[in-house]
Amino acid sequence: MDAQLQEKWKELKARWQEIYDLTGVSALLNWDQTTYMPPAGATVRSRQLALLERLAHERRTDPAIGRLLDELQPWVESGDASAHDAALHREMRKRYDRATRIPASFAAAFAEHVSNSYTAWAEARPRNDFAAVRPYLMKTLDLSRQMADFFPGYAHVADPLIDMADGGMTVATIRPLFESLRQALAPLVAAIAERPQIDNRFLHRRYPRQQQLAFGEKIAAAFGYDFTRGRQDETHHPFMTKFSHDDVRITTRVDESDLGNALFSTMHETGHALYEMGIDSAYASTALDNGASAGVHESQSRLWENIIGRSRVFWSHYYPSLRATFPEQLADVEMESFYRAVNRVTPSLIRTEADEVTYDLHVIIRFGLELDLLEDKLSVDDLPEAWHARYQENLGVCAPDDRDGVLQDVHWYAGTIGGSFQGYTLGNIMASQFYGAALAALPQIEVEIGEGRFDTLHTWLRENIYRHGARYTADELLRRVTGQPLTIEPYLGYLRSKYSDLYGAL
Amino acid sequence: MDAQLQEKWKELKARWQEIYDLTGVSALLNWDQTTYMPPAGATVRSRQLALLERLAHERRTDPAIGRLLDELQPWVESGDASAHDAALHREMRKRYDRATRIPASFAAAFAEHVSNSYTAWAEARPRNDFAAVRPYLMKTLDLSRQMADFFPGYAHVADPLIDMADGGMTVATIRPLFESLRQALAPLVAAIAERPQIDNRFLHRRYPRQQQLAFGEKIAAAFGYDFTRGRQDETHHPFMTKFSHDDVRITTRVDESDLGNALFSTMHETGHALYEMGIDSAYASTALDNGASAGVHESQSRLWENIIGRSRVFWSHYYPSLRATFPEQLADVEMESFYRAVNRVTPSLIRTEADEVTYDLHVIIRFGLELDLLEDKLSVDDLPEAWHARYQENLGVCAPDDRDGVLQDVHWYAGTIGGSFQGYTLGNIMASQFYGAALAALPQIEVEIGEGRFDTLHTWLRENIYRHGARYTADELLRRVTGQPLTIEPYLGYLRSKYSDLYGAL
Repeated sequence: MDAQLQEKWKELKARWQEIYDLTGVSALLNWDQTTYMPPAGATVRSRQLALLERLAHERRTDPAIGRLLDELQPWVESGDASAHDAALHREMRKRYDRATRIPASFAAAFAEHVSNSYTAWAEARPRNDFAAVRPYLMKTLDLSRQMADFFPGYAHVADPLIDMADGGMTVATIRPLFESLRQALAPLVAAIAERPQIDNRFLHRRYPRQQQLAFGEKIAAAFGYDFTRGRQDETHHPFMTKFSHDDVRITTRVDESDLGNALFSTMHETGHALYEMGIDSAYASTALDNGASAGVHESQSRLWENIIGRSRVFWSHYYPSLRATFPEQLADVEMESFYRAVNRVTPSLIRTEADEVTYDLHVIIRFGLELDLLEDKLSVDDLPEAWHARYQENLGVCAPDDRDGVLQDVHWYAGTIGGSFQGYTLGNIMASQFYGAALAALPQIEVEIGEGRFDTLHTWLRENIYRHGARYTADELLRRVTGQPLTIEPYLGYLRSKYSDLYGAL
Repeated sequence: MDAQLQEKWKELKARWQEIYDLTGVSALLNWDQTTYMPPAGATVRSRQLALLERLAHERRTDPAIGRLLDELQPWVESGDASAHDAALHREMRKRYDRATRIPASFAAAFAEHVSNSYTAWAEARPRNDFAAVRPYLMKTLDLSRQMADFFPGYAHVADPLIDMADGGMTVATIRPLFESLRQALAPLVAAIAERPQIDNRFLHRRYPRQQQLAFGEKIAAAFGYDFTRGRQDETHHPFMTKFSHDDVRITTRVDESDLGNALFSTMHETGHALYEMGIDSAYASTALDNGASAGVHESQSRLWENIIGRSRVFWSHYYPSLRATFPEQLADVEMESFYRAVNRVTPSLIRTEADEVTYDLHVIIRFGLELDLLEDKLSVDDLPEAWHARYQENLGVCAPDDRDGVLQDVHWYAGTIGGSFQGYTLGNIMASQFYGAALAALPQIEVEIGEGRFDTLHTWLRENIYRHGARYTADELLRRVTGQPLTIEPYLGYLRSKYSDLYGAL
């Protein structure tokens, strides 16, 4: 690489670093807004966020970046660039193209609409007032289609929207996969519904906040969360956020009358954080310094929360310690009862509170509704009833109102219709594939979990998934790590085996 | 004002608002760094701060602002502009001129030097290693002189540096005033040293953190601190910071074996915050949306902390409540003993821990050393010994090392030499002048304080001082509010009367 090209490469990376840093600053502003900001700070905070977003957008779409990418293209194509540099160039190219295809005026109008839509939703949901958000949702649908049209050549109008979150995935891949999954889950759910219910009432005794937080942080640290590079705070909705490669924070919500709430949310967000913390430090502050896709990210949160955190082998080690933390509340609860309680299956109305077996049905319903809206098979007017009908059909439950129906999730009111939900179920599917590969390579992992040790698993995940950051697409990563494309069999096998053990043969 | 001028005025204010917002964002980044940031976040945090500082600097020195200011000058001079608009124009002009007189290359070199110097100091202080910071201090002295030279026409080289913090103040005003104060304080301190010591040992019993914090926040709220527009967190060094007109936060430090520490620091920072919170909301997000000067700011922190918070009438109301908060620790302590303990006078080594009577001697020593260094009457090599000698002379104490001597305060290691300290004592002087004017206008204030009510005082301060923000200089404000220029008599009267009552006639 000659000196002139080297200079250009350096300049391109320096420009990208500014975008990275502005994004990290915005993340801090958002984090503060949900953790500590006094209420009156909200107005100027929105203005500060809009300013930073504008500064980042100007930089993301700066033609100088396009020129540098072009000038460096021959170097990348010549094979002289290292695989890492080539991947970095490709990722910057992808993001630059995406940012520049969407006209600035459209991006601004969309951002403004979404902000108004979110406000309308936040007011309408407690009032159960779908009529109030209907016009916003209609406009969102229209803008979502326009957004897709900036990326012509798609097979399905949702494809460009899905691609933004789950690069490389399409309706053609996902729809049949989700339909197979739905058909396999429905009889499982129905069969479990006929078995005797598991008692989980003791989870709703009073569990003091401080002890819940301390126990959750003990687990996070044991999983490998590095508290010198992060921290946990409390928010209404738990999330993971990243201000830089070495400042990756998580939040949780504590409910003193629900032991499972904070506990599993901490494990979930820890999974997301382990991924970000585990990215190769050589990628720090570059376009590769984030996870590969929404689905791969979710695979890690669900792996740590469910496959590990709701396993019998995990609690065989940790239950005595949990019981020592809450000796009165759990005095009459044996380990096996606790394990069963945190895996209780019940068809319910709320996605975020759903168990492992029913969870994907919530997602598949939403994904289907998104496609139907985009394909004009369903109108926004008919959406609330379609929601109820599909819940009735798939889960056998029906919300008494729209609050827990179509107004339930923020996604459609704060972003596009299309591309928002598939990642959750893709994550569940991939989690089983990845974990299967880990166990095949290192069978001692399950023994170690029973001893409260997670380093072999964590190291394997870091080596095989985390360190690569955004270097590979989800599909590339799956094939690299498991030798397989996306497939639901390992996930179904996991669910059938675990829940047959809990509920009797399914 | 014609439409074209109106457009220009709007544009100028919009440009300024961006600077204001970037400054608020930087303040949040700094706040997070000292409150919650995990240690490994530090490296990128510095880079984020440097980026925001660069963006703000580019905007502060943008020639477009100079052009707009020029084009609007005739409008301001014609008298058509409102007094508020004229003040805003003047303030923007002052800051633009200041920002553009310092060449960008110098500003960058100075910022880099100061950052290195701060790091060197933070390492050297615990090691008591003056030699390690000596070269930094020599360069700081040199750069401080160069900084002053960007503002030619000064009477004393320190004047431009003082003007940056205390606009309109000069060595010619301050030096004789401080010398008179020193001469008046020295015999007070000496006389008190011969009286029987006040017992304050009970302040060092164990006072649990949570109760300390809760009591401090109760006082802050009673003073008028608006917790919907702010909050208190814990840091190693307490401070007040502002992210916007409606997000003004304070921090405190709790020492479980020192009841006075958090209590008075909270009152102090509350005073700063009341000032910022009390600025006219019409000034929000403009160049007038901050205090008039370092001195006026300090006058408010010291007024609330000392004149109110260490007064007998205040504790006549609040002591029963404090005692109820710490019933065991204060069981054997009557109100009068408590009042005396929090006003104990002892010549000591550390400025930030000094009592009201000796505090200004710490400041005057530093101010004198700054002038001597700038005037080349004192070399950096001789500074440590000069420090010890002046402490011996003025306070009768001598630090055993440089750690509590010349390495004690961060100021010279993180900014210019000159301009850093005078505000503390100017604040004490002005606090008495302002409070005297308030009492003269509304004598019921002291009665109300005895009933735990501060709204009459707070309203008077807001009406006469806070709401004006940066509209007037300290001198203008003093004359407007008190009819007097800066004068030490009210302050000396306050100290003599209060401490004669405590220690016998002085």
